Amino acid sequence: MFYHTKRLQYDARPERPDPVYAKKLQEVLGGQWGEISVMMSYLFQGWNFRGPVKYRDMILDIATEEIGHVEMLATMIARLLEKGPVDAQEEAARDPMVAAVLGGTNPQHVIVNGLGAAPNDSVGYPWNARYTIASGNLLADFRYNVTAESQGRLQVCRLYEMTTDRGVRDMLSFLIARDTMHQNQWLAAIEELVADGLEETPVPSAFPQDLELSKVSYQFWNLSEGFESQSGRWARGPSIDGKGEFDYIGKPEPLGEEVRELGDANPLALGTMKKTMRVTPPGTGGPQPAAAD
Amino acid sequence: MFYHTKRLQYDARPERPDPVYAKKLQEVLGGQWGEISVMMSYLFQGWNFRGPVKYRDMILDIATEEIGHVEMLATMIARLLEKGPVDAQEEAARDPMVAAVLGGTNPQHVIVNGLGAAPNDSVGYPWNARYTIASGNLLADFRYNVTAESQGRLQVCRLYEMTTDRGVRDMLSFLIARDTMHQNQWLAAIEELVADGLEETPVPSAFPQDLELSKVSYQFWNLSEGFESQSGRWARGPSIDGKGEFDYIGKPEPLGEEVRELGDANPLALGTMKKTMRVTPPGTGGPQPAAAD
Amino acid sequence: MFYHTKRLQYDARPERPDPVYAKKLQEVLGGQWGEISVMMSYLFQGWNFRGPVKYRDMILDIATEEIGHVEMLATMIARLLEKGPVDAQEEAARDPMVAAVLGGTNPQHVIVNGLGAAPNDSVGYPWNARYTIASGNLLADFRYNVTAESQGRLQVCRLYEMTTDRGVRDMLSFLIARDTMHQNQWLAAIEELVADGLEETPVPSAFPQDLELSKVSYQFWNLSEGFESQSGRWARGPSIDGKGEFDYIGKPEPLGEEVRELGDANPLALGTMKKTMRVTPPGTGGPQPAAAD
Amino acid sequence: MFYHTKRLQYDARPERPDPVYAKKLQEVLGGQWGEISVMMSYLFQGWNFRGPVKYRDMILDIATEEIGHVEMLATMIARLLEKGPVDAQEEAARDPMVAAVLGGTNPQHVIVNGLGAAPNDSVGYPWNARYTIASGNLLADFRYNVTAESQGRLQVCRLYEMTTDRGVRDMLSFLIARDTMHQNQWLAAIEELVADGLEETPVPSAFPQDLELSKVSYQFWNLSEGFESQSGRWARGPSIDGKGEFDYIGKPEPLGEEVRELGDANPLALGTMKKTMRVTPPGTGGPQPAAAD
Amino acid sequence: MFYHTKRLQYDARPERPDPVYAKKLQEVLGGQWGEISVMMSYLFQGWNFRGPVKYRDMILDIATEEIGHVEMLATMIARLLEKGPVDAQEEAARDPMVAAVLGGTNPQHVIVNGLGAAPNDSVGYPWNARYTIASGNLLADFRYNVTAESQGRLQVCRLYEMTTDRGVRDMLSFLIARDTMHQNQWLAAIEELVADGLEETPVPSAFPQDLELSKVSYQFWNLSEGFESQSGRWARGPSIDGKGEFDYIGKPEPLGEEVRELGDANPLALGTMKKTMRVTPPGTGGPQPAAAD
Amino acid sequence: MFYHTKRLQYDARPERPDPVYAKKLQEVLGGQWGEISVMMSYLFQGWNFRGPVKYRDMILDIATEEIGHVEMLATMIARLLEKGPVDAQEEAARDPMVAAVLGGTNPQHVIVNGLGAAPNDSVGYPWNARYTIASGNLLADFRYNVTAESQGRLQVCRLYEMTTDRGVRDMLSFLIARDTMHQNQWLAAIEELVADGLEETPVPSAFPQDLELSKVSYQFWNLSEGFESQSGRWARGPSIDGKGEFDYIGKPEPLGEEVRELGDANPLALGTMKKTMRVTPPGTGGPQPAAAD
Repeated sequence: MFYHTKRLQYDARPERPDPVYAKKLQEVLGGQWGEISVMMSYLFQGWNFRGPVKYRDMILDIATEEIGHVEMLATMIARLLEKGPVDAQEEAARDPMVAAVLGGTNPQHVIVNGLGAAPNDSVGYPWNARYTIASGNLLADFRYNVTAESQGRLQVCRLYEMTTDRGVRDMLSFLIARDTMHQNQWLAAIEELVADGLEETPVPSAFPQDLELSKVSYQFWNLSEGFESQSGRWARGPSIDGKGEFDYIGKPEPLGEEVRELGDANPLALGTMKKTMRVTPPGTGGPQPAAAD
Repeated sequence: MFYHTKRLQYDARPERPDPVYAKKLQEVLGGQWGEISVMMSYLFQGWNFRGPVKYRDMILDIATEEIGHVEMLATMIARLLEKGPVDAQEEAARDPMVAAVLGGTNPQHVIVNGLGAAPNDSVGYPWNARYTIASGNLLADFRYNVTAESQGRLQVCRLYEMTTDRGVRDMLSFLIARDTMHQNQWLAAIEELVADGLEETPVPSAFPQDLELSKVSYQFWNLSEGFESQSGRWARGPSIDGKGEFDYIGKPEPLGEEVRELGDANPLALGTMKKTMRVTPPGTGGPQPAAAD
Repeated sequence: MFYHTKRLQYDARPERPDPVYAKKLQEVLGGQWGEISVMMSYLFQGWNFRGPVKYRDMILDIATEEIGHVEMLATMIARLLEKGPVDAQEEAARDPMVAAVLGGTNPQHVIVNGLGAAPNDSVGYPWNARYTIASGNLLADFRYNVTAESQGRLQVCRLYEMTTDRGVRDMLSFLIARDTMHQNQWLAAIEELVADGLEETPVPSAFPQDLELSKVSYQFWNLSEGFESQSGRWARGPSIDGKGEFDYIGKPEPLGEEVRELGDANPLALGTMKKTMRVTPPGTGGPQPAAAD
Repeated sequence: MFYHTKRLQYDARPERPDPVYAKKLQEVLGGQWGEISVMMSYLFQGWNFRGPVKYRDMILDIATEEIGHVEMLATMIARLLEKGPVDAQEEAARDPMVAAVLGGTNPQHVIVNGLGAAPNDSVGYPWNARYTIASGNLLADFRYNVTAESQGRLQVCRLYEMTTDRGVRDMLSFLIARDTMHQNQWLAAIEELVADGLEETPVPSAFPQDLELSKVSYQFWNLSEGFESQSGRWARGPSIDGKGEFDYIGKPEPLGEEVRELGDANPLALGTMKKTMRVTPPGTGGPQPAAAD
Repeated sequence: MFYHTKRLQYDARPERPDPVYAKKLQEVLGGQWGEISVMMSYLFQGWNFRGPVKYRDMILDIATEEIGHVEMLATMIARLLEKGPVDAQEEAARDPMVAAVLGGTNPQHVIVNGLGAAPNDSVGYPWNARYTIASGNLLADFRYNVTAESQGRLQVCRLYEMTTDRGVRDMLSFLIARDTMHQNQWLAAIEELVADGLEETPVPSAFPQDLELSKVSYQFWNLSEGFESQSGRWARGPSIDGKGEFDYIGKPEPLGEEVRELGDANPLALGTMKKTMRVTPPGTGGPQPAAAD
Repeated sequence: MFYHTKRLQYDARPERPDPVYAKKLQEVLGGQWGEISVMMSYLFQGWNFRGPVKYRDMILDIATEEIGHVEMLATMIARLLEKGPVDAQEEAARDPMVAAVLGGTNPQHVIVNGLGAAPNDSVGYPWNARYTIASGNLLADFRYNVTAESQGRLQVCRLYEMTTDRGVRDMLSFLIARDTMHQNQWLAAIEELVADGLEETPVPSAFPQDLELSKVSYQFWNLSEGFESQSGRWARGPSIDGKGEFDYIGKPEPLGEEVRELGDANPLALGTMKKTMRVTPPGTGGPQPAAAD
């Protein structure tokens, strides 16, 4: 169960309204790598978790913090929209600057949300649950979490550069710092997971590696013209998991069969066949297609 | 530009048709972590790439390989559907086993695709471009790629366990092995990227870290009841980026302002205000709202 | 079956083209609370309806009217787009006002729709069927209908304020008036439904209320810091359904169990477990996991 | 900011695993009318709110409670999946009952979520932010909230009937009771809002009603064959808002213009025109179309 | 404006309820190629139309008919669901046939729609407006319409084969016949359009063909291994539009530049560059990046 | 399996960056009728194909070419974004032209993609797999392919007119020419298919036409007021398939039953019934509803 306090985790007060920037800031609220995504991913990772309790507790700590980040961003956006343009834009018809500003705003901020924040991204596309990652395998998920904090911090830094409002930058400097922590936190959690012997590369480690086709497990296939890719760490030396040696295949040939055509399918599917034929549906008294037998 | 050969990268031939399994196998073709996702992510990472050419070439090598993986899965699914059930199901009305099998199939495999594969996942939800990650920042993206190969290998391993068809398992053992390589490859690429001095933790490293609110950059906030989270690597010792020290805040208090109410917005937005008021639209001759000034 | 007349229900002719406004007006055509949503919701409520015929007939009357509203809006938008900007925008490169106008238009109106209306909202997001509500329970649905006419009238009023075109305002004044009627109509239908003894609060009333956990049926839980919520109608006095008494719980405690960890799951799912383990898939000759038994 | 306790608001423990029911129960977790929808709608209504503080506080109280409901459902579903079927289904190939059960499960519960809950509905469609309603106008939104609690209670009652597991029914009896409270709570809030003079029918009341086309404000248009709709409350007597009289138009005629054709558009849009013509793009040296002037 | 009659265009009455088939039949109601798609496409093509009135009238005739087809399918599905399974399924726990039937039903038909039809497809995915095609260019759109009637008839024929219910088959035989007409109708409309000189191949014909790179306008590029594609009509002889000659390029080489790397972008985007660099955001007092100039 | 060359199929180099045009050009990359759609449709049509090998080879030739078109567009967009605006827009605050340009850009090009292309359309809506058409019936699919090349060429021509950049126009002139070829190619393929006796109108031709309700197979129903539709080719003369005669029904009457109400459904669905009733769920000890028997 959850409790709410009226104080924000950190201030969220702009110097002045700016509906154009409000549109952009939506990206880190309701976008793919925004705060709702990490809030939901961490909540579901925590609630579904079946392993040692220290991980579960840690995941729910940060999940709960993220609800507060969503709150801060929603509050900031609502304030950026306070003087939002709803009037008939007569001024815009005369003043190119007013017209330009209007063109850069999101019309739904007025029409749909009445000058409030919405769980959408910067082009107005709604957040959806495919942004929630919770696979049950912690190493797979912690790698995702490192990614999410990296993409998220990247986007917040870009947004920092897109405003000079000191109030907005102050809040963003807090979120950027927290993302620094969270990148470190998930990297630390990966170390812990491996140290605890719960998971390692390749994920999932509980699957017996001798069931995979081991002869291709550490081959690099050069399928793009040229050999520039040969000069990287991925092309030589021991593999990162310590279980093999990288092998660069410069001129790879297919290992599989040649496919010129597939077998025929049930003719009742009415697809194009190698020869034309008339099909009589079951129960209509006509002859039945052989393939249906 | 691309060229196509008629040979598959590896065989894709089941022992026998199995439309129920075909439905499940769709997940790693058109699901969030399926082959289309990595194909598209790597293609766009490569095409958009502006850094050293060895990375671009490497990314497009693996991207091109993934198109071949999509081809193998599509071929396998088309063959698993070959005897797909299209008839009037009179047998199903009598035989619970036939009825059960039908209940486990995807009706679109017959009605929409005519016994062919589709770029959808195992519940029939269509693949979409939000699964394509290409941020322009390689460390952010390589972390995503490690994740994708981890989630992907996890799902293929689960699917391996859900069939005993030797032909299917043979193909999956190839894909699992390639995912082993690709997890290693992206981990190696991350090492190379750091060694080349192009990027490091926290991402993005080009943003000056002294602009973030450094006092909270390495704090762990315990916002979930209990202290189990204190016993992990993330709660003590130097941070993973080597730039700070983890600090466990056991009883965190909000740092921000108390929000009891927001300011009034433009009354023309017709939202609920602190006091009721009647609003006259511009251009209708009535008195204009003060807030519109 | 349906018939079409060539006359519109009401005029839909702007004073002059305005592609920027056309983009905004899309919201009440193809947005969540636009005319397509009520058209489809009422059609499906009517077609699926199993109760007294007077309701079915009434629902289909208004559903049929809504098809005509969609027609009016589509016609208006097509006319607003008549002089739509398709040229190479050389003028825009010199004139900030032209550039500003272009920035505020929807590029799909030209590229995709050739200066016609589309069933999308004001940010170009396509209408989808999750906006169609037809639950089979009339009170649940009529409450939705009141909401739809309220959100819809709110949006049309906001759009009225965003233009001074007399032709557009004339058409909107018709739609606003019809929404006034339809709010009243659905509120009247709710009265009728209760008067006819078909449904009442709490919905669904056919479910025996003694099966619910009645001790919490009229409690207000104060889970947000502070007690301002205590001063409302919802915190004291008889409940609105007349079946209980509101009870304000100022300092609520959880009623449920403490969850520190979940039980183990099938290890074949390859999720993170309390202890690490190696899993052998069925049919591979190795030892089988106990949990699979 | 938010805090989390380890205790659930109410117990969420089934008698036994049941992956088929887990699939169905997802509807009230991640479906359109599920707990995530009310959680997100109430959070955004609260965060965006600009009116009297007692409403804001009340909204955030219930919003915070809903996070706890999401937690209960996720926990329940994770437990229902504990013995989830991941094996090679050899038994299913022989036993119609096992095959039937497998056919009724959601394959993503194994492949994607590793036997955990996901924020999707009962057909696997992901939750999306268009289910979040926060318009800034409280009466419009409270009407939505009444609807959401009605549709939600309806769905939970249906799910109650679809299981006999006493643990599941116990938790559902709690949720049904809370929905009873919440229907009453939002109805009470509507009464309070009107009593406080902040809003009334028709919504939005701040828009001057004399700007609407008042002659059609209380007319019922009978557009569907037959006159059964004449016998309801909506066809006669004073309107519910007390501002008009219902008027039944039995044989309605269109009020608008006849539309036989629209005006020509910019020929550069390359649409079909009344006469054929060849178009020369700007900047190519050919004659320019007149319509581009 | 539209009017509704109570009579269906054709009967829609099954011999008996069949909730498994109801799920499948949804495809041609709310699927990509279902009746809602053609209803909406034709309505928008008609409403947006700017050419000769005989086309507009014809398009709206068939659009109006399609609303009636949607009505027939919704009615049929509601009847197929009449005895829909809502009970606690104790019988299912014992009887594999009952369990199998349940596994093949759509749970939303009970939980969400209360045994009514919904505008979704056979896997429960909601209809969306991207299925509405109205480009403003009639030949482009009529080609789409021919496709829609072809894919639609194909799906209805497949569904005919998936039932033996005589009532369902009777209704489907009507829809199949109408699709026969509509394929012919749109093919006739294409003939008329060309005969009227309004449009021809290649679409759009108003664009001057001398602006295209004519040397590749009739070349077949053989980019897939082998030469089987050389034996078709597309590889030799005059082109179908009569304006060129097909030319088979058996061993095609790229015509474009070699791309080894792209140019640098604005460093403030914080993407990976050819060399590492530290970026100082504008307004923070540090040195500004050169690329921002 | 596929191979990649570093050379583009044709040049993709703009004269100068133009982020506003980059946003628009996205339509033909990731929009419904963009290059990704034809790439994916042709790949899946080829991989799923079961008919004569010359068709399979031809389809995969063009599919492989389309991957190269996606590459060209992505490259072009990345270059158009090279000087993309990421700074704090102080200049924009003073210069209406700068502000206007910013208003016309897609914020995700900076925030999400770091000045690279994305598989989205011109309003930022992500590409999705419902744009992939592969039905198994070649005539149905080839008709779709003709449509896709028509809508696609139409959009590229519109985009040609929306720029004067010679580099962009050069690339578009190549794509327009290829679309000319591909319209011709698919029309030729349709001729070949009919000549080979594999399929004909009405699609699917393998379904016995005597099972359709032949009396309505060639009737035109005039359901829209007026008789303008009578003057077209679709209203008289032999049908296009040569199997019937068009018949214009000027005053059509419904052929089906009158529907005043549907039958009752299972009362456990808790829908509105003709009479009110209380329902007791199974397993709760109360009397069971008759309809559940």
